[in-house]
Amino acid sequence: MLYLVRMDVNIPLDMPKERADAIKAEEREYSQQLQRDGRWAHLWRVVGEYSNYSVFDVADNDELHTLLSGLPLFPFMDIKVTPLAKHPSAVE
Amino acid sequence: MLYLVRMDVNIPLDMPKERADAIKAEEREYSQQLQRDGRWAHLWRVVGEYSNYSVFDVADNDELHTLLSGLPLFPFMDIKVTPLAKHPSAVE
Amino acid sequence: MLYLVRMDVNIPLDMPKERADAIKAEEREYSQQLQRDGRWAHLWRVVGEYSNYSVFDVADNDELHTLLSGLPLFPFMDIKVTPLAKHPSAVE
Amino acid sequence: MLYLVRMDVNIPLDMPKERADAIKAEEREYSQQLQRDGRWAHLWRVVGEYSNYSVFDVADNDELHTLLSGLPLFPFMDIKVTPLAKHPSAVE
Amino acid sequence: MLYLVRMDVNIPLDMPKERADAIKAEEREYSQQLQRDGRWAHLWRVVGEYSNYSVFDVADNDELHTLLSGLPLFPFMDIKVTPLAKHPSAVE
Amino acid sequence: MLYLVRMDVNIPLDMPKERADAIKAEEREYSQQLQRDGRWAHLWRVVGEYSNYSVFDVADNDELHTLLSGLPLFPFMDIKVTPLAKHPSAVE
Amino acid sequence: MLYLVRMDVNIPLDMPKERADAIKAEEREYSQQLQRDGRWAHLWRVVGEYSNYSVFDVADNDELHTLLSGLPLFPFMDIKVTPLAKHPSAVE
Amino acid sequence: MLYLVRMDVNIPLDMPKERADAIKAEEREYSQQLQRDGRWAHLWRVVGEYSNYSVFDVADNDELHTLLSGLPLFPFMDIKVTPLAKHPSAVE
Amino acid sequence: MLYLVRMDVNIPLDMPKERADAIKAEEREYSQQLQRDGRWAHLWRVVGEYSNYSVFDVADNDELHTLLSGLPLFPFMDIKVTPLAKHPSAVE
Amino acid sequence: MLYLVRMDVNIPLDMPKERADAIKAEEREYSQQLQRDGRWAHLWRVVGEYSNYSVFDVADNDELHTLLSGLPLFPFMDIKVTPLAKHPSAVE
Repeated sequence: MLYLVRMDVNIPLDMPKERADAIKAEEREYSQQLQRDGRWAHLWRVVGEYSNYSVFDVADNDELHTLLSGLPLFPFMDIKVTPLAKHPSAVE
Repeated sequence: MLYLVRMDVNIPLDMPKERADAIKAEEREYSQQLQRDGRWAHLWRVVGEYSNYSVFDVADNDELHTLLSGLPLFPFMDIKVTPLAKHPSAVE
Repeated sequence: MLYLVRMDVNIPLDMPKERADAIKAEEREYSQQLQRDGRWAHLWRVVGEYSNYSVFDVADNDELHTLLSGLPLFPFMDIKVTPLAKHPSAVE
Repeated sequence: MLYLVRMDVNIPLDMPKERADAIKAEEREYSQQLQRDGRWAHLWRVVGEYSNYSVFDVADNDELHTLLSGLPLFPFMDIKVTPLAKHPSAVE
Repeated sequence: MLYLVRMDVNIPLDMPKERADAIKAEEREYSQQLQRDGRWAHLWRVVGEYSNYSVFDVADNDELHTLLSGLPLFPFMDIKVTPLAKHPSAVE
Repeated sequence: MLYLVRMDVNIPLDMPKERADAIKAEEREYSQQLQRDGRWAHLWRVVGEYSNYSVFDVADNDELHTLLSGLPLFPFMDIKVTPLAKHPSAVE
Repeated sequence: MLYLVRMDVNIPLDMPKERADAIKAEEREYSQQLQRDGRWAHLWRVVGEYSNYSVFDVADNDELHTLLSGLPLFPFMDIKVTPLAKHPSAVE
Repeated sequence: MLYLVRMDVNIPLDMPKERADAIKAEEREYSQQLQRDGRWAHLWRVVGEYSNYSVFDVADNDELHTLLSGLPLFPFMDIKVTPLAKHPSAVE
Repeated sequence: MLYLVRMDVNIPLDMPKERADAIKAEEREYSQQLQRDGRWAHLWRVVGEYSNYSVFDVADNDELHTLLSGLPLFPFMDIKVTPLAKHPSAVE
Repeated sequence: MLYLVRMDVNIPLDMPKERADAIKAEEREYSQQLQRDGRWAHLWRVVGEYSNYSVFDVADNDELHTLLSGLPLFPFMDIKVTPLAKHPSAVE
């Protein structure tokens, strides 16, 4: 089941660089693991912004919330979720 | 080059059903041709709305505008385009 | 799986009363059938508006879109869907 | 009498973890007591956000404000209240 | 129990003047009856707009919705309701 | 002359409790004095928010601004003013 | 007493040109009479829009509403009023 | 003197195609004349929308309003104007 | 050439009072000098807000930006500029 | 390929002046280098705001994101990107 997710990252400007780097490294590992197991189906950067649009493919709402709230950057992000359905004209 | 596109369809309520059906049939054919040649990479329905989120994979801004403005439903849609870039954590 | 859904009804002011009444009667029957089978879990009127907040309990995004787009009033409504997850403090 | 309530939680990022945990524990206890006595009728997490949608069943506006302003997280939340009425098509 | 209500009137520009005048006369009578029995506690014009802010004093949400949805101008208005509670510094 | 005023209070979360309490006590005294002399005609709490809707009855725009900018909480509030006129259907 | 007023004009596109011209001529005469007696203190066009910003100098809220609601274009305008007070740094 | 101008075109869907084509042809001629004399310095299509961003180079606010309000499509457009100044880091 | 300018002042709550007073005194002097030479044509307080609406009469966009960005309070203000043109019905 | 880019700068008010000046100097150098090689085609100040509108001429979305995210002021800016296409009436 697919969801479009927009994430806007707002790391506090006064966070020490080492801590920010550590969180970003965890985020990257966390994200790539989910990408590899197929649940984080797409991950794109929004041009000019510290933001991404992603597509998740998960079993249900609860699984999606568990994945998103577990993101190392979750406390520093605004996240908006749009549930997607099959489009009648889609050939995929 | 990828773009996220949201399309909200507003067909006038007083359009004769045959005309609306004809336009929708053209739209479907137009869309599926672009999906098959790879330029309309994804097409998803927004749950509960007469709207879609799509991903286009085209050569440049001009090609995208040509494709979108050629949509049979173009006069009846609000369209918003978000340019996408490669995300540094993407594994795809 | 639960979703909060807000529906704002905008029937054209010039629709003949008989047609509007017929659509509303179909809507009522459609809604009550879904309420009785448990998929339309809650239906509340927003005070002062021709709008409702509803909670749907369905298998997935596709089923929800099928139910909503089949509403007799669907062409005359603005619908917004919010996916819900279990809250860690919920006792229900 | 029913109200839909949306709560968005914004705990300051620099609050010490112990204090935040203590407030959240109080919030949980406060919430579950109200859920058990029937006044906090529903509590759902908004997927992807540190937010909830809730339904309260209270005697009047004053009781609702007393309950909400007494929430341990009240100083850290944005709250929006929508009064609900019985829907003429509701079967419940 | 008090509620602040804002009503914005949008009568279609092509409604025949006689019909508009008849609806407005009914609205006036309906409104004044509720003002006299104390349920429509205040009625003020918003300067420069075909809008009013009103305060209603009714038993509950359902009574308020019944009153508002019975307004002769209801099909031509946007209405927003804000529930009010006693303010701890109010002397009235 | 009447004005509807909405005040949203945002006291900084790190203000020492004693200072906040002192300002709130001054605010209460200031408000009640104006209520008693009839210029602060109504004061209602917005349910679920640290906000109020008030009605002021003053001689002119300048007097209203003097009263509002003199509020002890003025530096911590967002205030919006709506001028009100007599409604032709008002019986009061 | 001064007020800033923004007026956005939306004459229906299908109004016959003669009728539109007649209303505009009345509007012009009405406006110039108020400008000459000093109550419509300033009238400026917003560049690129069929809109104006105006300053009115009237006795009170009621007089302003009477003037604005009497505008020949009133049924075709969105109007927003901002009450103004003397600025402590103003030299005028 | 430079201004950024955004124009959103909304031709009524029921305008006869010949009339729409005639207006668009006039608009094109009008626009190209201004482009050639240097006052309409840039004209770009917004991808996916029936809209443009333009830069005008004119003597003053009045000249810009005269040019914009003379556009054949003016009655069918929403226009927003942003005045531009020289940027201290600009090398042009 | 005229422009309407809205300025919303947001001085940080933790700025020492002496520094704030010094900046405000400079702002006052700066403003009154421009008022006296005719370039700051009008200055009004927005009732209930730490904001003003002003009208500037300057040679061009660059001069206006130079004046505004030189305001002692500039780092603490949100400023919005609306270019004004002569209104065809203005008698002034 | 062209893009319109709006940048709003929000340097923290408590950043030491020397650090802010150093970042601005780097930004200026970075910007002018891109202007000279033709990729930052236009750079204009928005009158009254610490903001600019720019036009970039780059090969694709990825190059634009690389340039923008490399701006020395990037952590302190809100950036919005609008992709532009050739306008059919453009003579340039």
